[in-house]
Amino acid sequence: MARKNAFYAQSGGVTAVINASACGVIETARAHRDRIGKVFAGRDGIIGALTEDLIDTGKESPAAIARLRNTPGGAFGSCRYKLKSVEGNRREYQRLIEVFAAHDIGFFFYNGGGDSADTCLKVSQLAEAMGYPIQAIHVPKTVDNDLPLTDCSPGFGSVAKYVAISALEASLDVRSMARTSTKVFVLEVMGRHAGWIAAAGGLIEDQGVPVVVLFPEIPFEEEKFLARVEELVARYGFCTVVVSEGAHHADGRFLAQQGPRDAFGHEQLGGAAPVVARMIRHGLGHKFHWAVADYLQRAARHIASTTDARHAYEVGAAAVELALAGHNAVMPTIERISDKPYRYRFGMAPLAEVANVEKFMPRQYITDDGFCITEPCKAYLRPLIRGEDYPQYKDGVPVYATLKNVAVPRKLATFDIH
Amino acid sequence: MARKNAFYAQSGGVTAVINASACGVIETARAHRDRIGKVFAGRDGIIGALTEDLIDTGKESPAAIARLRNTPGGAFGSCRYKLKSVEGNRREYQRLIEVFAAHDIGFFFYNGGGDSADTCLKVSQLAEAMGYPIQAIHVPKTVDNDLPLTDCSPGFGSVAKYVAISALEASLDVRSMARTSTKVFVLEVMGRHAGWIAAAGGLIEDQGVPVVVLFPEIPFEEEKFLARVEELVARYGFCTVVVSEGAHHADGRFLAQQGPRDAFGHEQLGGAAPVVARMIRHGLGHKFHWAVADYLQRAARHIASTTDARHAYEVGAAAVELALAGHNAVMPTIERISDKPYRYRFGMAPLAEVANVEKFMPRQYITDDGFCITEPCKAYLRPLIRGEDYPQYKDGVPVYATLKNVAVPRKLATFDIH
Repeated sequence: MARKNAFYAQSGGVTAVINASACGVIETARAHRDRIGKVFAGRDGIIGALTEDLIDTGKESPAAIARLRNTPGGAFGSCRYKLKSVEGNRREYQRLIEVFAAHDIGFFFYNGGGDSADTCLKVSQLAEAMGYPIQAIHVPKTVDNDLPLTDCSPGFGSVAKYVAISALEASLDVRSMARTSTKVFVLEVMGRHAGWIAAAGGLIEDQGVPVVVLFPEIPFEEEKFLARVEELVARYGFCTVVVSEGAHHADGRFLAQQGPRDAFGHEQLGGAAPVVARMIRHGLGHKFHWAVADYLQRAARHIASTTDARHAYEVGAAAVELALAGHNAVMPTIERISDKPYRYRFGMAPLAEVANVEKFMPRQYITDDGFCITEPCKAYLRPLIRGEDYPQYKDGVPVYATLKNVAVPRKLATFDIH
Repeated sequence: MARKNAFYAQSGGVTAVINASACGVIETARAHRDRIGKVFAGRDGIIGALTEDLIDTGKESPAAIARLRNTPGGAFGSCRYKLKSVEGNRREYQRLIEVFAAHDIGFFFYNGGGDSADTCLKVSQLAEAMGYPIQAIHVPKTVDNDLPLTDCSPGFGSVAKYVAISALEASLDVRSMARTSTKVFVLEVMGRHAGWIAAAGGLIEDQGVPVVVLFPEIPFEEEKFLARVEELVARYGFCTVVVSEGAHHADGRFLAQQGPRDAFGHEQLGGAAPVVARMIRHGLGHKFHWAVADYLQRAARHIASTTDARHAYEVGAAAVELALAGHNAVMPTIERISDKPYRYRFGMAPLAEVANVEKFMPRQYITDDGFCITEPCKAYLRPLIRGEDYPQYKDGVPVYATLKNVAVPRKLATFDIH
């Protein structure tokens, strides 16, 4: 079989461990130089392929590539750029194939969530229709944990760990202050559609912290919510609320949309946390504090979960192995064998079954009252946040990799993206 | 000299390492059982003394006390309760002395910031006036780093480390996304009057991150600020803004007060970050993200600085040593001998010179344009964030101490606090 080059791109919102997947792809490809020639990366994701702005990862030393394993963000750049239907965007799909052909690329590794699984599938289909041989493998990544057919998605375990630790630490702070000051702490976390990240806040119940979790999966009812907060404050003296950015009313209005408008009538700039905090002040009169973790949560490589970092590396490696085994239009999946001890193996899912399917929290993972997580959910989450995969430090801050990102000389005419 | 009991209380906002000071006080007192009998702690701070709600720390095992060293929050509870002038609150000061006398307390260790230094001094003065012998020692603590006469205050180094790491990690995230998505990330940090915490965000310049810091010490000018952001975005493609909650206009209006009002005309609930983010959207049109770290920053024991955790323990120990050496109405101070290698020793400051004095960022620590920190400031900050004093973990979350907090039987009539 002729040796072919590989193309790797990062897609969508980045995570604390997406570079570990890049590391897994590149190191595994380097171990198979007889089959895989160069590994090119897309500068700023798929845009790099469309504009023929390829990075030659071969210019990076083994040490630099190894350091990717501990570096948050997307080392080659990512983008929010969705290729739509093949019909409406045939020009762009064809351009991808042209770029692949110009650089002798036979392997396409696309590292992202549901949208990129869809793109990956379409690239594979169009290449086949055009008679260009490529193996397109999707490398799963999403902090939202909403990809189907895999037990979990790399990126999620670390954000879940960050949320559990942050909620616990802030709760100990509030507990200290509750007698004369703050009684309720509200932490807003990510998860527009699925409540997996918010669910991790529920783990701190095991540390004796009274906590209310607001999921996108459970329509928000203000009266019931305030009653639950008051019950916990009465019993414990304080309580912590972990609210998903996607929490919404039964009619679909997001809590975050309920905020005040400025003088220009612009909607306030987010988020759910200040809205929930205001409800608590107006409804119960308690002093509160609120935090919005935003990017801090998905970038927090300093406290990445060992399980997650390992998963991220291994799905990258598994993607290369699947390609070498001749697969196409598939995604490596993580299959859980047991919770305790935590054991898993890798499987494979066809992209046709992955693309455009979102995995929500099952109802049985949420308590009957809708405000916390059940024991089966905790058993699911615990192995994913286990272990502290610390980066190295220098002068008090982590040593994160910045690559040279040397451009590959262009061979084609320029191409305008929309 | 007769053996006397000691009283220890935590005051004001807690920190990631205030319990390390408690540990230093208690362990050092236990090592001097010939001079110090029991160590009582105030439940919820000074309120515990006023209401005679004392905790017998002798009921805690050495292992439990040792674990305080790694536990954030205030293990005995803290409070925001300021004793005012002796004239206006004579009844309360007298009550304190009565409680001390009833429990044979000869040592008063008060762990807090500027306000508690003032209270500590007044207790000492009134006790002397009443002829009750007590040694009142202030144990410095404040994330704000605004206590005078000490090179730094325990609690600050860890929050500074948290801010530097968080700003760096989020910046790597933004850098990845900047081509098609977020170009400016805004992080709001604590520091109502002094910009020490915000200053720590400036350290990430050394990692090649374009960063703008907004200090309370520098009056905010929107036009100049937007020009600086635009300059950085043009050059680097993205930029990070670290804004102090205390950032304000020349006329004293806080940025955080500029937000929209809700339907009831209530001021929006904070903070400076969404206000700055809105300016960037309106003024420059860039996509942004913002985070408000709030309690997460001052509770982040999981990434406490080794220097800070050590300082915190040592000031507790030093306070006991000062008391045993016969001092009264003083505070142990940290005196820096050299930056590199970092060396320091303990000194002592009279509380009369500590109380009600705030230490601001010196102008020479801020760049001429007012938007970042200078090399001398970096040299000051670096040793304070050095080292990672990790707690132990179980099942992915830190093992933090929760004490039994056994109450000492009351001897006096009840007392109503205002």
